[in-house]
Amino acid sequence: MSLDYQSALEIIHGEVQPLLRQGKVASYIPELSKVSPDHFGMAVHCLDGRTFTVGDANIKFSLQSITKLFALALAFSREGDAIWKRVGREPSGNPFNSLVQLEYERGIPRNPFINAGALVITDILASRFVQPDIAVLQFARLLADEAAIDFDFNVALSEQKTANRNSAIAYFMKDFGNLHNSVDLVIESYCRQCSITMTCMELAKAGSFLARHGSIPWSGVQILDASSSKRLNALMLTCGTYDAAGDFAYRVGLPAKSGVGGGILALLPGEASVAVWSPGLDGAGNSLAGTYALERFTTLTARSIF
Amino acid sequence: MSLDYQSALEIIHGEVQPLLRQGKVASYIPELSKVSPDHFGMAVHCLDGRTFTVGDANIKFSLQSITKLFALALAFSREGDAIWKRVGREPSGNPFNSLVQLEYERGIPRNPFINAGALVITDILASRFVQPDIAVLQFARLLADEAAIDFDFNVALSEQKTANRNSAIAYFMKDFGNLHNSVDLVIESYCRQCSITMTCMELAKAGSFLARHGSIPWSGVQILDASSSKRLNALMLTCGTYDAAGDFAYRVGLPAKSGVGGGILALLPGEASVAVWSPGLDGAGNSLAGTYALERFTTLTARSIF
Amino acid sequence: MSLDYQSALEIIHGEVQPLLRQGKVASYIPELSKVSPDHFGMAVHCLDGRTFTVGDANIKFSLQSITKLFALALAFSREGDAIWKRVGREPSGNPFNSLVQLEYERGIPRNPFINAGALVITDILASRFVQPDIAVLQFARLLADEAAIDFDFNVALSEQKTANRNSAIAYFMKDFGNLHNSVDLVIESYCRQCSITMTCMELAKAGSFLARHGSIPWSGVQILDASSSKRLNALMLTCGTYDAAGDFAYRVGLPAKSGVGGGILALLPGEASVAVWSPGLDGAGNSLAGTYALERFTTLTARSIF
Amino acid sequence: MSLDYQSALEIIHGEVQPLLRQGKVASYIPELSKVSPDHFGMAVHCLDGRTFTVGDANIKFSLQSITKLFALALAFSREGDAIWKRVGREPSGNPFNSLVQLEYERGIPRNPFINAGALVITDILASRFVQPDIAVLQFARLLADEAAIDFDFNVALSEQKTANRNSAIAYFMKDFGNLHNSVDLVIESYCRQCSITMTCMELAKAGSFLARHGSIPWSGVQILDASSSKRLNALMLTCGTYDAAGDFAYRVGLPAKSGVGGGILALLPGEASVAVWSPGLDGAGNSLAGTYALERFTTLTARSIF
Repeated sequence: MSLDYQSALEIIHGEVQPLLRQGKVASYIPELSKVSPDHFGMAVHCLDGRTFTVGDANIKFSLQSITKLFALALAFSREGDAIWKRVGREPSGNPFNSLVQLEYERGIPRNPFINAGALVITDILASRFVQPDIAVLQFARLLADEAAIDFDFNVALSEQKTANRNSAIAYFMKDFGNLHNSVDLVIESYCRQCSITMTCMELAKAGSFLARHGSIPWSGVQILDASSSKRLNALMLTCGTYDAAGDFAYRVGLPAKSGVGGGILALLPGEASVAVWSPGLDGAGNSLAGTYALERFTTLTARSIF
Repeated sequence: MSLDYQSALEIIHGEVQPLLRQGKVASYIPELSKVSPDHFGMAVHCLDGRTFTVGDANIKFSLQSITKLFALALAFSREGDAIWKRVGREPSGNPFNSLVQLEYERGIPRNPFINAGALVITDILASRFVQPDIAVLQFARLLADEAAIDFDFNVALSEQKTANRNSAIAYFMKDFGNLHNSVDLVIESYCRQCSITMTCMELAKAGSFLARHGSIPWSGVQILDASSSKRLNALMLTCGTYDAAGDFAYRVGLPAKSGVGGGILALLPGEASVAVWSPGLDGAGNSLAGTYALERFTTLTARSIF
Repeated sequence: MSLDYQSALEIIHGEVQPLLRQGKVASYIPELSKVSPDHFGMAVHCLDGRTFTVGDANIKFSLQSITKLFALALAFSREGDAIWKRVGREPSGNPFNSLVQLEYERGIPRNPFINAGALVITDILASRFVQPDIAVLQFARLLADEAAIDFDFNVALSEQKTANRNSAIAYFMKDFGNLHNSVDLVIESYCRQCSITMTCMELAKAGSFLARHGSIPWSGVQILDASSSKRLNALMLTCGTYDAAGDFAYRVGLPAKSGVGGGILALLPGEASVAVWSPGLDGAGNSLAGTYALERFTTLTARSIF
Repeated sequence: MSLDYQSALEIIHGEVQPLLRQGKVASYIPELSKVSPDHFGMAVHCLDGRTFTVGDANIKFSLQSITKLFALALAFSREGDAIWKRVGREPSGNPFNSLVQLEYERGIPRNPFINAGALVITDILASRFVQPDIAVLQFARLLADEAAIDFDFNVALSEQKTANRNSAIAYFMKDFGNLHNSVDLVIESYCRQCSITMTCMELAKAGSFLARHGSIPWSGVQILDASSSKRLNALMLTCGTYDAAGDFAYRVGLPAKSGVGGGILALLPGEASVAVWSPGLDGAGNSLAGTYALERFTTLTARSIF
């Protein structure tokens, strides 16, 4: 008695309305705090090419931490398992920007989805590409099949001005020998990368290679081998939604990566990728309405990996 | 080009031989340290009733933390979501018997699979059953369809004599108001519960209801509703293998629960449950050869939830 | 232009009145919470035998943690530097009943004035005396030259009923091998020891051997050699007032030991010992008016060790 | 039966010889690691003008953290108690360059003698002086009555090149709003300040105002009022020797400030100041032979504040 995707999206669209103003729009990056909390968009991109959308699915939003997934996929595709010498694969049990664990674990971040880990990935890219942020951008364009995808320089600058915590993390890792390029370069690239904007439609499309065992559905280009692609999915499930990954897996049951811009990318392996956006965040930094929407989506469509 | 289950088991049986003595048999419970590290057994129980085994699949071993899964399922089936007021659903990022996080989070354990969380579950059962350990034992007999399953009183006593850390955890939670029964009762029940022994065959069978959306395959008895069953699977994936859950998900990609007796129960939702046993543990407390065996199993049979 | 002791006491008595109800009477031991916050007493015992008092200096109050000083002096006098193998001498930087540091430092408490350290001292005494609490009581009677000093069994029982945190600490240390006697014996003795009551007059007298390089002024009995006595004073200065020792040294500048009953014993080496009592506590667990009184006392009498 | 100062110094000089190579010369600043561990010098500066020396008391060494005392005295003399809004007065219970506590206490360092606290003091000076490092240097020259005291630019540069940990700390505090000037300015000034060199003779002289209640003995210039001076002494006792302040107070019993250059300045209030230097450090970062020398000095001369 499961619903088709479009029906599910429309039911969800109605249900989330009272939730939109319950979340808090990210305020630590001034530029992000200007976004209205009333937005809600959702898009499903099936591996067979069909797409379903509802609400603001064609409005651009700031990807923020979701870009960590693309940067990781790019680094992993080039460096393979060597990246795991410099960053772990365990949930952190601490807020995404904490330095405590980093000290106990001597500069090796717990996973590539907390800020410390993402900075290491940027550092790895910076050792391979002259402009690591451009490399991530071009990779995102390829994945979304959309050349117009770009940085939002206002957001990037705004973030850079408030990057003290990230600078602290970067210098801390440099002290432990786990940052090879200059802190300034890594921070600047990282802020720029985070500022990439997409619509839900574009994001769902960009993530679909992870639902299809590493190859881009429409072109067949193999970004990652099947095993690596599954492993990234596993990592998304255990670490992709900040310090609420356990709760998210419990409620939604899909691999996903969220960002403080209010976006979440979730995957139904072998079937589809789903992007949702609503700027109001819950206490853990995940989109409040977005998480609810995904929980309802799996219930209404009876989809789950478990 | 994936192998059938029996062929996979036999290949794995050969491959693990050099690994058997690389792990360390649990020594903190004196009685457990007597087990030979040379054992290896594996059993697959398909939902259609077929079973496949290799090695010592019919030798009993001490379930230890794997019983946390049965205790949780029992408590969840009776109390529902009320249990989440007293225990969290997040990976801990700390060793299974640490008290640090418990202090910062004011007596609410991170999840039901670390010792603190399991003691809370025992406490919840103790408020409902006169003898919570007997309740878990009978539940395990029902799940495995085998009335001869029993405690190993030598192991239970051995564990009780070295239960100082667990007593500390229990008193600590009692101080925070998160333990309602006496510490002595909870510790004694917990030690007895942990001492339950099964063979791989029995364990695979006992876990199969979680692969079948909560209902026992051969009897149709609904232990948990489908949604609750999937949620326990999600919890196993994010928290079931101590502080190595991220790594385990990355390598194996299946929901699983391990014990320091060297056993691991893993699930292929909709298809089968798999039990493996080898007493030598890795640094995180999971069976070294067992983890390898499951990683190879998913690769050789091309099974994954991702 | 410094005042004589009696004049200073009387000025202070007037000044503290508005402070008496600003502190909070300890509530975690039910029996203690019954004490009125309006009490204030202070007594100076000079090494030449003169005494000065003001206010409720002859009303008994519960010594609580101040007994840790007597227990330590007793253990130190019998075991000498051997005690430092089992307890450190550093300020803790954490609340007096925290378990976090204990885990990082593997069961060795930071100092004998936090609860964990005091439990180790009780354990050391329990290995030497059949009834360690009686040993501390008799030692206190000797020091105060007053045979009528006794336990308050109501307080002892009240404390034992709420001793879950201390039991957790004791079991935790036992797990690390740093508790040799049974947890029950140690906790019971410790609670009884803490319940000893004295007046300010008695307490000032009991502490005077520490101001006189280890020998009791009126009898000449050498409790500790001069060097050991000075070392205990140093320890009181760095660790004697819970997690506020730095602030206390900064403001008062005297070695001191406080208790949650609202008492503080302070020393002017070579000259006098001072006891103050007022039940209202500040956020760190030290008597609010008592700390103020001692700060004013050193200012008005121009006394300081610095 | 106490010895005069000169006899004590000579006995100590003999006793420390076997200890000189037991410590480890600081290696984290490359330039410091070049110093021979064989040096040992000690100087006593009495308030009546007499001086006593032994060994290498006239060889310059790098003051390092000892300069934190001068910077603090300068800031305290100008800003008074306002500085305590931005830095605490408690022992840290953690290594001097840890970030953990800083996170839990939201960017307020525990005391001005750990690196984080010293950086805040530099920041306070930077808001008042165009060149805070020059201000500290001139203050040090005034205190030591010696215009030739200067930075060691090689050491300053060497330290700046390895200042990643300090940069992390500074950015971390900036994130919490507790650093008002640019991180680069603060770090550069701090490294330069740390590089000031003095001989034992000069250091003993420079510290003597703290033994004389805040006024310079030979000129009568009041640097701090008597109360403030005593309070700094108290702070040195509880926090002046890194994470070993409790142990140092226990053994030596004098207010003191140490540096990783191997120097220690200690005070006998009302009587003298003592400087000792020996480059080999113990595990806590204090001069191994220097600490021993001060312990013996107080024993042989029967001096103590307790």
